[in-house]
Amino acid sequence: MPKPKSKYFPKLREQLFVIVFGTDTRAGKLFDIVLLWAIVLSVLAVMLESVREIKEEYASVLFLMEWSFTILFTVEYILRLMIVSRPKDYAFSFLGVIDFLAFIPTYMTLFVAGGSYLVVIRSIRLLRVFRILKLGRYLREASVLTDALRSSRHKILIFMGAVTTLVMIMGTLMYLIEGEGGGFTSIPRSIYWAIVTVTTVGYGDIAPQTVLGQTVASLLMLMGYAIIAVPTGIVTSEIAQAEKNKKMEESDGRVCIACGVKGHDDDAIYCKNCSAKL
Amino acid sequence: MPKPKSKYFPKLREQLFVIVFGTDTRAGKLFDIVLLWAIVLSVLAVMLESVREIKEEYASVLFLMEWSFTILFTVEYILRLMIVSRPKDYAFSFLGVIDFLAFIPTYMTLFVAGGSYLVVIRSIRLLRVFRILKLGRYLREASVLTDALRSSRHKILIFMGAVTTLVMIMGTLMYLIEGEGGGFTSIPRSIYWAIVTVTTVGYGDIAPQTVLGQTVASLLMLMGYAIIAVPTGIVTSEIAQAEKNKKMEESDGRVCIACGVKGHDDDAIYCKNCSAKL
Amino acid sequence: MPKPKSKYFPKLREQLFVIVFGTDTRAGKLFDIVLLWAIVLSVLAVMLESVREIKEEYASVLFLMEWSFTILFTVEYILRLMIVSRPKDYAFSFLGVIDFLAFIPTYMTLFVAGGSYLVVIRSIRLLRVFRILKLGRYLREASVLTDALRSSRHKILIFMGAVTTLVMIMGTLMYLIEGEGGGFTSIPRSIYWAIVTVTTVGYGDIAPQTVLGQTVASLLMLMGYAIIAVPTGIVTSEIAQAEKNKKMEESDGRVCIACGVKGHDDDAIYCKNCSAKL
Amino acid sequence: MPKPKSKYFPKLREQLFVIVFGTDTRAGKLFDIVLLWAIVLSVLAVMLESVREIKEEYASVLFLMEWSFTILFTVEYILRLMIVSRPKDYAFSFLGVIDFLAFIPTYMTLFVAGGSYLVVIRSIRLLRVFRILKLGRYLREASVLTDALRSSRHKILIFMGAVTTLVMIMGTLMYLIEGEGGGFTSIPRSIYWAIVTVTTVGYGDIAPQTVLGQTVASLLMLMGYAIIAVPTGIVTSEIAQAEKNKKMEESDGRVCIACGVKGHDDDAIYCKNCSAKL
Repeated sequence: MPKPKSKYFPKLREQLFVIVFGTDTRAGKLFDIVLLWAIVLSVLAVMLESVREIKEEYASVLFLMEWSFTILFTVEYILRLMIVSRPKDYAFSFLGVIDFLAFIPTYMTLFVAGGSYLVVIRSIRLLRVFRILKLGRYLREASVLTDALRSSRHKILIFMGAVTTLVMIMGTLMYLIEGEGGGFTSIPRSIYWAIVTVTTVGYGDIAPQTVLGQTVASLLMLMGYAIIAVPTGIVTSEIAQAEKNKKMEESDGRVCIACGVKGHDDDAIYCKNCSAKL
Repeated sequence: MPKPKSKYFPKLREQLFVIVFGTDTRAGKLFDIVLLWAIVLSVLAVMLESVREIKEEYASVLFLMEWSFTILFTVEYILRLMIVSRPKDYAFSFLGVIDFLAFIPTYMTLFVAGGSYLVVIRSIRLLRVFRILKLGRYLREASVLTDALRSSRHKILIFMGAVTTLVMIMGTLMYLIEGEGGGFTSIPRSIYWAIVTVTTVGYGDIAPQTVLGQTVASLLMLMGYAIIAVPTGIVTSEIAQAEKNKKMEESDGRVCIACGVKGHDDDAIYCKNCSAKL
Repeated sequence: MPKPKSKYFPKLREQLFVIVFGTDTRAGKLFDIVLLWAIVLSVLAVMLESVREIKEEYASVLFLMEWSFTILFTVEYILRLMIVSRPKDYAFSFLGVIDFLAFIPTYMTLFVAGGSYLVVIRSIRLLRVFRILKLGRYLREASVLTDALRSSRHKILIFMGAVTTLVMIMGTLMYLIEGEGGGFTSIPRSIYWAIVTVTTVGYGDIAPQTVLGQTVASLLMLMGYAIIAVPTGIVTSEIAQAEKNKKMEESDGRVCIACGVKGHDDDAIYCKNCSAKL
Repeated sequence: MPKPKSKYFPKLREQLFVIVFGTDTRAGKLFDIVLLWAIVLSVLAVMLESVREIKEEYASVLFLMEWSFTILFTVEYILRLMIVSRPKDYAFSFLGVIDFLAFIPTYMTLFVAGGSYLVVIRSIRLLRVFRILKLGRYLREASVLTDALRSSRHKILIFMGAVTTLVMIMGTLMYLIEGEGGGFTSIPRSIYWAIVTVTTVGYGDIAPQTVLGQTVASLLMLMGYAIIAVPTGIVTSEIAQAEKNKKMEESDGRVCIACGVKGHDDDAIYCKNCSAKL
């Protein structure tokens, strides 16, 4: 992020920028840690509020926490808007919207009364959990994982397409075989069962009762058992590749003394760039 | 597929061929996309028809959709038959049969009245989902996956044989241990339970009640836990190999004309073995 | 297996040996295939006998099948005993005992009357399924799998030890937390639950009811989720190694023209045995 | 562990040290094996005591076993304290504390009477199971596994963080969709359900009932199915690396004195690079 151009209070603004966006100074680190705890605690508070017993007993504590966090997040949001050089870009970025949605629902509860609307509005506060993504910059290790997932994107999609086709066919088949018995009341519901089975989740709320149905279900399970090997194979192969690439980047191979070009193979005798003997 | 020899309307026929079978022209792409959506929507319609509430409320809409898609698929089928140079080969190919089965059941419902026959005939329409396989030609990435699966075919089969033997023995054992209790009423049913357990699906409709039964079941679970590693290992190893082969094929590297050594980097100017200019 | 020394009917005995033990001649192959089907069908018959409806309806058919297979297996067993040069070694080998147990229970049912003994005796017939292992000799591919499993034996055992320790500790913990509620009535039963959970089988017959219990269970599930990666990693790594070794054996590297020694590295310039230029 | 300096009975003390801590002599091995069995049996005894039927029937046997093991472990503990040169260091080490907790609860039951305290005190005895960790020194193979897990520590943590975020968001979503139906009575409970689902455990005590809920659940299952590939990929890649490193350390290969090239085969006579005699 480019440093903001000084317009008003240039000195103060720059100092705030270092604290709010930076992670190098002590104040910057402290700001990050306080904010992280505020996010985690505010999310926990909203979640605990959904438990009836807790809500009834600790109503006032939860109310106090909610408004404290809301004011804290509001201040932080305004601060960020003031500091950055392009406030609009921040406000409409993914994290900017999340920051906004983290405090606005609490204010909305003042104007909206009652019922199901309130539940939805309150639930939006849970989107605060996305703010944890801000910590992503600390995670160097994550790059290997995201690289591996990104380059296996296409293969995973194809795999998912194959699984979707499989569960559609098997779900329909089971609907025809089992009929109303055992909970296979419609094709979409049978497909839901097929997904529950092929992913080896197996709730047991829908389960085949006929011998033929159990035979087909057994086949589906064994297929799911073998199929799960495919995404694992894809990701493993990609992670191994990503790690190799990372290592390659870190250690650049042999250097030619004559021309300084790096990256010669281990068995090279002459420099590939200037033909000097290595 | 070879271009059709012109017999009647050679010009028109060739143009239609490009649209129906080709994917390079704009009309060809549009045709593919429209067809894909028709397939997806028609499959969804059949599936939703199995949900009682939807069937009762939207009966006329579903009826209209069904006949629209049927006529569209009929036209497409006749078009394909007319265009290809060897209609018989197309009609008896896997995709040709699927194309035929996609529309014929709707016509059959006009002649067959009532009951279970109708359900089966209507269900055949769901085979339309196989038509999605036509999109396979877009998927270059899929080749690594199918190559890996093909070359691990034998090992997966052996593995499946071993699992089958295991569940037969463990199922019989549990039938002897548990008896009628807990749902182990016959050996086939016990084998069904063993498959549900070893694949870690675990519905819970059949579960051991005795201490000995639970001990044997625990062993089976731990075995299943370790066994699942085997197909994963096989497929991973094959995918890694398939990817390596693909990369090898793509870049066998440049060859030095002077000494014949292969595998030079893309940016190499001189041979790394004999220092000759590449 | 060494060819038998001729004692009586040397010519006939040798011919029978080729048919019964060999797989190269047409008669030998036919013998194998007939036997395989007999094994599969006889096992299926015993299994179906345990289903009450089938047993009642097809009693005479099953009775006939049982005695046909018993006589066939008896003849085969005596034939093998007569042909091999060391009958004792065969009779007490693993497959020899299985061959014997495949037919003896049927004769025993003539002398034993009634009840639970009969069930056990009849069940022994199911050991016939082990005879399928004789087909192992056809499976070249299996060697990679068994090699990989053999060399990862120690690691899998250590892993199983770690999992056992984990489920013992977690099972005890859940017994203390949940008490009688939710089915955690004793420590062994809680350990059974822990195994059902960590292996992701999840029957649901025993499930935590308290908030603390569900929290600990969640931790156990996430651990099980990460732990399953370990055996997969071990086996994958071993399979990759086993395949590499197999390939190495097949293609022996470069050959020295001077001394004929194989297995030189790809980057070797001089023969490692006679120092001639490669 | 350094040998103890002789203060009193130097000869006896040294001999005891060899037996208690050593594994080379016959007496030392015997001591280890006896202790291992004592640990396993004492843990089993405590576990079986929790089964009501066993406790009632075999009360006196269990009582006798408990006190025998307690006295044995007490003697062993005092012996260790006396032998080691720094008793304090041992007493406050992890295994020292476990050794102490293995026998002290039995003595405490003499002074504490009744109820829930007794249950907790008795349960502490189960910590004996940790003493099995002492066997760790026999396990050379374990080093590859622990190395692999240690170096994939960061990645596993990131992965766990991602899974935690996912289950929090999906759990909240399902709470909003399903409401009180199907057991989604609070957000924490819905998150518990999400964990049960994404890890493919699937108890079935909480299961979505609405069509929308089942659709979202299906998505979560398929995600869990693909996500499980990530830790497997990480660990596999690390194990492969750890094994390679281990092999590399073992055989860095022989070095040619003439040219310094490493990695010659074990049977090589001449340097593959400069043809000098090795």
